[in-house]
Parts: sequence; structure tokens; C-alpha cells
Amino acid sequence: MDLWLTEFSSPDAKFSIRVEKQLYSHTSDFQQIDIFQTPEFGRVLVLDGIVMLTEKDEFIYHEMMVHVPMAVHPNVRTVLLIGAGDGGSLRELCRYPDIECIDMVEIDREVVNACRRFLPEVAASFNDPRLNLVIGDGISFVRTKQDEYDLIIVDSTDPFGPGEDLFTREFYANCYNALHSDGIMTNQHESPYYDSDAQIVRHIHARTTLYFPITKVYQAHIPTYPSGHWLFGFSSRKYDPVADLRAEEWLARGIETDYYNIDLHRGCFALPTYVQQLLSGGDV
Amino acid sequence: MDLWLTEFSSPDAKFSIRVEKQLYSHTSDFQQIDIFQTPEFGRVLVLDGIVMLTEKDEFIYHEMMVHVPMAVHPNVRTVLLIGAGDGGSLRELCRYPDIECIDMVEIDREVVNACRRFLPEVAASFNDPRLNLVIGDGISFVRTKQDEYDLIIVDSTDPFGPGEDLFTREFYANCYNALHSDGIMTNQHESPYYDSDAQIVRHIHARTTLYFPITKVYQAHIPTYPSGHWLFGFSSRKYDPVADLRAEEWLARGIETDYYNIDLHRGCFALPTYVQQLLSGGDV
Repeated sequence: MDLWLTEFSSPDAKFSIRVEKQLYSHTSDFQQIDIFQTPEFGRVLVLDGIVMLTEKDEFIYHEMMVHVPMAVHPNVRTVLLIGAGDGGSLRELCRYPDIECIDMVEIDREVVNACRRFLPEVAASFNDPRLNLVIGDGISFVRTKQDEYDLIIVDSTDPFGPGEDLFTREFYANCYNALHSDGIMTNQHESPYYDSDAQIVRHIHARTTLYFPITKVYQAHIPTYPSGHWLFGFSSRKYDPVADLRAEEWLARGIETDYYNIDLHRGCFALPTYVQQLLSGGDV
Repeated sequence: MDLWLTEFSSPDAKFSIRVEKQLYSHTSDFQQIDIFQTPEFGRVLVLDGIVMLTEKDEFIYHEMMVHVPMAVHPNVRTVLLIGAGDGGSLRELCRYPDIECIDMVEIDREVVNACRRFLPEVAASFNDPRLNLVIGDGISFVRTKQDEYDLIIVDSTDPFGPGEDLFTREFYANCYNALHSDGIMTNQHESPYYDSDAQIVRHIHARTTLYFPITKVYQAHIPTYPSGHWLFGFSSRKYDPVADLRAEEWLARGIETDYYNIDLHRGCFALPTYVQQLLSGGDV
């Protein structure tokens, strides 16, 4: 059998993964959810035909989403996690014993259930007592919150389908209000390489910049995402992600990582010139 | 018509590019050479079925190969370029007026001819009077040289077929001898992500480390190479690529770049933890 899962990076480029077996397929109220077993990447989670994570490289995305803000903010106690139904960002957060409370708002219960069943090493921390899992709409949830969180992580799908409203001005304004005055927001920021993704990058950056005085973009190599060049946003009223890095304190925690490290933290904010230019030209 | 050029990143993953038209196809004495017109990437050069460059992103590879060492060494006058038949590295070198002489040794005349004809914006500098183009074997050429170059750039294909001997211990030893005592060598270093590429990364690093006391690896996002995560080697007896960066001097040159910049120079040497571990474990 020669079975391939193919995702188009653009109309004229595509990436294909050999599949051994389809483990799960379900149409939820929100999206199509599929999980495949593959020889190269282990298990692969696909939502509406888009690769969300693979067992081989999910550590890159999740470490970069979580450890970058955690190594800057001196005292994270309360976290809001939006989306992130696979549990990978939650797993990384749960490695910090001084976090007291994690509100996680995922719209699709079936994503959580499927990941707990088929991706247990990713969905490893759903039993953590600090977790308050809310199945619901992150946009509505964050609207009700004021000055409550030290850290908000927007771990969304792409801005199509159920994730679309997580890229609006109103949503970012509400995140700003939901954070303490020294809070940090990180958000997945798409890729700068293919034109349609690059336009989203511009919009996200222009919109977050409207509210947060400090809005920096950082990057990672994630081979199973389109182009392999993935961006993340770091937004805060108070902290610069490099100048305010607390390297010694983070190292003293002894957290073992496979992608993130302190040198890389400093390096990942150094963007290619063409990405800098892309970010400087966005419409709101 | 639905015509796709497909390259396997591993036996179980592949990347495909939509093709409008095949512009050139020729079997030289050394390899199969193809050039395609594509809607996403412009023209694409393929050697023995492997994508060597695309018009869309060749700037990344060539800028990183050339500007990184040029921003460190204070006084590059003589350069040896090995491989590099497409002319992209040559084009970047020719932007430095104080370079006096560039010996370029490419084994396959047909690659140069095809690129001059079909990729004129890459093969833009073959008429530069400082160029001494030698069609021949880089391994033999460098064996005859002693203390002659400030910079050697090994811009080779992958270590299969005609490029294979550019990855041996003997070759690196000869490059060491061909450099002045404060010379720098940069070499393309493959990708850390897929297993078979990662083994090559280990070998290259272990072998260059045998000769050069300073051997650092840096990275770039090159979406059309397997995994998009590409490595380069920086080797020298004298210069550390970050500590000895001459930022002000390089900026004063006013060279406009689309990928490289001074912040990125510092950042690109900060490698992910798993790549650091890969590099530390190599056999010679």
C-alpha cells in the first residue's frame, strides 16, 4: 500500500507524509479531526486537512510557545491557555511548579478526547490539579476577564474555521485587558514565506501592536509546518523578551528541553531582513 | 496539465513543486541537470533529482554562505570557491570591492552554462574580472594550494555523486592548508532533521573539528531544502564568528540584503538543543 497524506503549502507547493494507518477520523461540531500513524513522524494530528502536530516535532512548537515567556516573566502564577486542545502547551506549562492555576479554553471537546486517547505523550497533563478545562469559546471567555492572568498563550489553529476569531482586534484587546499590567501574551503567528500566510503575519503583527507597547516576533524551525519557518508573537506592556530574559533563574529550574535553550531564546528574535520588512508593512 | 516535481526528504516524506514547463534537461559527464519554470518558486535548478536552488529563495543560502564570513574576517582579498556552479555565491562575493581574486573550481561546465543561460540573475557575475573560473576537480585543486586564501567557501551538492569527495577528511585538511593562518572556511552542512541527513551533519562537524580549532555551526530557514532547516559550517584557526564579528565595518559597507543582517548573524549560531546534541556526538 502506498498511502500519502498531502497538505498544500500554497496552490503550487505541497508536502506529503507516508501513512501507515488512519487511527481516528471524526467530524465534530466544529471540524474534521484525523489522526494517522506514520513511519517518519509518528502519530500526526490533522484538523480540517491541516497538520496540527506530529509526534516527531511537536516539541519545537510547544517548547517555544511556553518557555520563551516563562523565562522572561519573573512570577507566573495564573495562565490562560486558548485553544491548545492537544495538550502540548499544557504539558510544558505543568513543568513549572510555581504556576498555580491554568484556565484552558478549548472549543472542541472531541480534539481533547482524541488526543488523550491517541496522543498520550502530548496530552499528558490533563489530570494536573491546577488545570481548569473549559470547553467553550475562547473569545467569549476572555471578554469576561479583567486583570487576571500573568500569561496568556493563544495556541490556535490557522485563521480559518473555528480559529478565525482568535485573530481579530477585539480578541487581542480583550487579551490585553485580561492580563495583569506586567502580563505577557504569546501567540502562534503563522509563516512568512508563502504569500497568503505572509499576509496573515502582517495582520497579526499590526493588530497586536495596536494594544501592546512591546510586540516582538520570534521564529523556530518546524519542518512539518508550511515552509518550516514558523513565527510566534510575544506581547507585553512591560517586558522586553531579550532585555528582560532571566537566564540564570530559568537555568536554575533545571528544565530539560530538546529545542529551547537560553542562547536560542536570544537568537530566535533575530529575524531575517525580509521578515522584518514584512512585519513593518502591515494593515490592521 | 498537472505537472509536479517531487523530491523525497526521506523515504517517507516528500515535497512537490508545481511545474509550468521544463526549460532544460541535459545529462552531463557528471550528473543530470534540469531547470524548470514554476509558479511558486520561479525557475528551479535540479541536479540528479535534488533541488539545488529556486529563484524565490536562493538569496537565503547564498547570503548566509558569503556574508557571515565576510562580516568577520577584517581583510578578505583572496577567495577560493569550490562548486557553486550556479554563480549565486560568486554574485554575493562580487559585492565586496576589496576582494581582489576569486578562484572558482566547478567540476561541471554544463552547470555553469545552463545557469548563465536560464538563471541570469543568479549567474550574474561570471564576467567579473576578479574571477578565475577553473573547470575541474576541487579536491585536486585545493591539494596544490598552500597558505593562499583568506576565505574558502565549499558550496557543494550533497555528499553523493560528484560532490562526495568534498566531505572527506583529506579535503578538509587540504582546505586548512590552503588558507592563510587567519583564514575562514564556510561549508554547506546539510540538515539536522531527517535521520540520514543528520548523520552527514555529524560527520561533517566531526571532520572539520579535527583540523580547525574554531568550528561553529549556523542555521537558516531555507524552505525548499529538506525540512527547511539548513546548517552551515564556519571554521577558522583565529576568528570566532560571533565574538569577532565586525558589525560596524560590515554595516558601513552599505550592502543591502534580504535575509542576512547583523542581528541575525549573532542569532543564527544559537542552535536548538537537539542540534547541539547531534553535533556533539559525531564519528569521524
